[in-house]
Amino acid sequence: MRLATILVEGRPTVALVTAQGDRFHPLAELVPGLPEAATGDMTAAIAHLAGSGTPSAPRGEGRPLDTASLLAPLPRPPRNIFCVGKNYHAHAREFAGSGYDSSAAGAADAIPSSPIIFSKPFTSISGPAADIPLVPGLDGGVDYEAELAVVIGKGGRAIGKADAMAHVFGYTVVNDVTARDLQQKHKQWLLGKGIDGFCPMGPWIVTADEVDAAAMRVTCTVNGEARQDASTADLIFDIPTLIETISLSTALLPGDVIATGTPEGVGIGFKPPRFLRDGDVVECAISGIGSIRNTVRRMAPARQAAA
Amino acid sequence: MRLATILVEGRPTVALVTAQGDRFHPLAELVPGLPEAATGDMTAAIAHLAGSGTPSAPRGEGRPLDTASLLAPLPRPPRNIFCVGKNYHAHAREFAGSGYDSSAAGAADAIPSSPIIFSKPFTSISGPAADIPLVPGLDGGVDYEAELAVVIGKGGRAIGKADAMAHVFGYTVVNDVTARDLQQKHKQWLLGKGIDGFCPMGPWIVTADEVDAAAMRVTCTVNGEARQDASTADLIFDIPTLIETISLSTALLPGDVIATGTPEGVGIGFKPPRFLRDGDVVECAISGIGSIRNTVRRMAPARQAAA
Repeated sequence: MRLATILVEGRPTVALVTAQGDRFHPLAELVPGLPEAATGDMTAAIAHLAGSGTPSAPRGEGRPLDTASLLAPLPRPPRNIFCVGKNYHAHAREFAGSGYDSSAAGAADAIPSSPIIFSKPFTSISGPAADIPLVPGLDGGVDYEAELAVVIGKGGRAIGKADAMAHVFGYTVVNDVTARDLQQKHKQWLLGKGIDGFCPMGPWIVTADEVDAAAMRVTCTVNGEARQDASTADLIFDIPTLIETISLSTALLPGDVIATGTPEGVGIGFKPPRFLRDGDVVECAISGIGSIRNTVRRMAPARQAAA
Repeated sequence: MRLATILVEGRPTVALVTAQGDRFHPLAELVPGLPEAATGDMTAAIAHLAGSGTPSAPRGEGRPLDTASLLAPLPRPPRNIFCVGKNYHAHAREFAGSGYDSSAAGAADAIPSSPIIFSKPFTSISGPAADIPLVPGLDGGVDYEAELAVVIGKGGRAIGKADAMAHVFGYTVVNDVTARDLQQKHKQWLLGKGIDGFCPMGPWIVTADEVDAAAMRVTCTVNGEARQDASTADLIFDIPTLIETISLSTALLPGDVIATGTPEGVGIGFKPPRFLRDGDVVECAISGIGSIRNTVRRMAPARQAAA
């Protein structure tokens, strides 16, 4: 099942997208008793589906999907999304050797012995075709990071590895866009990672029953040039380990997101670094899910106005 | 003005607390046209008050306040609260010398040159008299951190220092409780800082017009023994600088919280460290606001059940 958030007549609408990806059915038409809040809010929809509600099989062919109407599938998770740093061996080495890694004292410290977990606020999340903003003061070291993101269904605390996958609702694609200069100078990564618009997400959530998350291909291209290409089989800390680790500190909630880390090939892996520039097109794809495609755009300072 | 969230007949109620601290008036009785959502939710109340609504002067003496009914004043900010690491000189040195600081390569690196910003999710927030939980796996290095927390009123992006204080709604007290072992081993601080129940807050929010945040006394006692005692005049990065720094990355929102960092005297400042133990009573106080008093309690694993 593919669940998307689609702008329908000006309103965000949670919908089931067909296997062909070209038509959709509003979830409210498939789930009897779907709470009103869940018709447009994916977090509420997941809470309902992870509890009692299973959608019925769609009748009819559905409505035609204009992909331009796809929003981020989960624009407002219950709290900042959890993100994992340095979770692929080759990337951990390229990052530790880049000069931008405030988490490693040196090359010997490159591979983490425990998961490195930080967060991005919901305000960083943007749609699968949204522009990546370049704004003054945040434009000097912008980098891409294609990642598999886990979406939690059933919540829980202190979840063991053996039970962890039963808490996964599904998966989506994120680009954990990062201002490397801020990531480095602030030591903790929130300000370099949590910039407004620095988390394109989508195109939809694929439910856990449809994919094998331990063997998905994660790729990223910039202007069509291959930059990242790896398998989730190479994760240093796999999904059950991440769920066990995070849920020890805090009860996971329906709609929580865990971005599992990015593979080798980011801009700072090059010497000199290849940062994103105005007009660059970044496409992140994961087998079994789909792809997001975002253009880097210089924004006038006026675009920084208060929300 | 002191604004609290009080449990009244089983419902969280935003209320104005009298200067004596012993009586209250529900905000809905003082603000004509207060949105329904804002009667019980401080984030919504702040959004309303920071916009158009000013409370009228209370009539009558109000209702008697049972301090046991005080909840965290802001239990559900719009996103994880922003927290500042190592923001007092003496504390920055004690932390860098403790062996628990993953953000400094050595003593020469003790004083940060830019603010260190991390986050705690709303699920860590608890009331001004709530117990601080000791649970298996998270009980080996629990430490206190008394802090002045800034509550944002009017939102905005790229706010300059000169304008920053106009965006402050008020102030409250938090204890940024920390599992030092997790803080160290995960490098990024989210899991060691974001534990459920590790952010007691309160007793209320004092509005910005009533206090001078640049000269407040921050103290912490454990079982009555003085541990922390400093002035906010000693902050390395003052409140305008923190607002300027954070709002460059992300538009601040009404109800956002910035915990400004803790002064010298935390448990790891002692050799050997003095971690919190079952039964310890931690009291954090700030002049002009009030105090929160929390008892450390060992919880049975059953208390870790899913929310």
